[in-house]
Amino acid sequence: MLFVTSAAEQGFGETNMTDDRLSRQIGFVREIDKLKAVFRQTWLLDGSRKENDAEHSWHLATMAMLLGEHAAEPGIDVARVVRMTLVHDLVEIDAGDTFVYDEAGARDKARREQAAADRLFALLPPDQAAEMRALWEEFEARQTPEARFAAALDRLQPLLHNYYTQGAAWREHGVKLAQVLDRNRHMAEGAPRLWAFAERLIRDAVEKGYLAAE
Amino acid sequence: MLFVTSAAEQGFGETNMTDDRLSRQIGFVREIDKLKAVFRQTWLLDGSRKENDAEHSWHLATMAMLLGEHAAEPGIDVARVVRMTLVHDLVEIDAGDTFVYDEAGARDKARREQAAADRLFALLPPDQAAEMRALWEEFEARQTPEARFAAALDRLQPLLHNYYTQGAAWREHGVKLAQVLDRNRHMAEGAPRLWAFAERLIRDAVEKGYLAAE
Repeated sequence: MLFVTSAAEQGFGETNMTDDRLSRQIGFVREIDKLKAVFRQTWLLDGSRKENDAEHSWHLATMAMLLGEHAAEPGIDVARVVRMTLVHDLVEIDAGDTFVYDEAGARDKARREQAAADRLFALLPPDQAAEMRALWEEFEARQTPEARFAAALDRLQPLLHNYYTQGAAWREHGVKLAQVLDRNRHMAEGAPRLWAFAERLIRDAVEKGYLAAE
Repeated sequence: MLFVTSAAEQGFGETNMTDDRLSRQIGFVREIDKLKAVFRQTWLLDGSRKENDAEHSWHLATMAMLLGEHAAEPGIDVARVVRMTLVHDLVEIDAGDTFVYDEAGARDKARREQAAADRLFALLPPDQAAEMRALWEEFEARQTPEARFAAALDRLQPLLHNYYTQGAAWREHGVKLAQVLDRNRHMAEGAPRLWAFAERLIRDAVEKGYLAAE
């Protein structure tokens, strides 16, 4: 099935709205439905298919609720971590998912994502556009304890999925131990105990043959 | 692909863990991946497929961040609303999704969901099990302003999807106007302005032929 999704074409445009602010908010709520169609390289734990960014974001937000006690700095604002995880991948609606081990894709990732942020957040009322943009930029910059913790979760979740699917995405893309250590060791800055746990998984993955040593 | 997902069978059981608390948390994080396989009756806005509970929960949590100003009571704890929306459907991992217009399914829904809550939350360390259970029970009871607002979002989101897919799920299940009004009007208690908006959508849906008047 294919549907016309533009509000204007539905004859339910801005002119029918008593509240332009609500209208913009609803427009954004509709737009971000597209995150459900941005697929990642990570396999679901049952191996049935790859996961999408909306599911991934939900998983991270719920992990943030549960794993906050493992953050590097005590007393971080877990609610802000949750908000960051909810919005951290929205720019991929336009920019697409860049696999963490894709070096070619990484080169213009920042430019593609900035353009996406410009378009997407501008759909919101200006105060909320600024708020969402700030959350996303905080996540990307990894300069606050909250952002470092959110980034650690964003590495832990696919790592768990790779380990418990016997290295499905690693094998598929020929990813090696040194790359996994290199791209994940920043977890230690946001959540040292989670990194210690992740490192054990990685070593065990090599032993079990899920991940190539070199 | 099918993978063995039990930690014990992977040879990475509790005995290898230095921290039983973290082990239980990770076990829960793995278990809730199953929410991505619980499908709802709601179509994605692009009409390509139905959505699952994990995506739906992410969408509600993000809506809670953005629409809090429309809650019936000012100054509600939006962070708790976000947490509630993240966990509100976890019991459906065991109990399955009950379509809101399914009267037969509604009869034993509470019993099935209580059993699911008993099993699922018990995977967590006891303090966190109690916290998650309390959030879920608060959502279900709809006795606090936060729960009433979360429930309003839980009705608004599928309503938007139905309207903007030209009534796809309504038509598929022969749902009528009176049922939609009956099952959604409690939105007014949690978010009166969102209900006013939703009511306009519903009336317009009847006019456009997306929803049968009787």
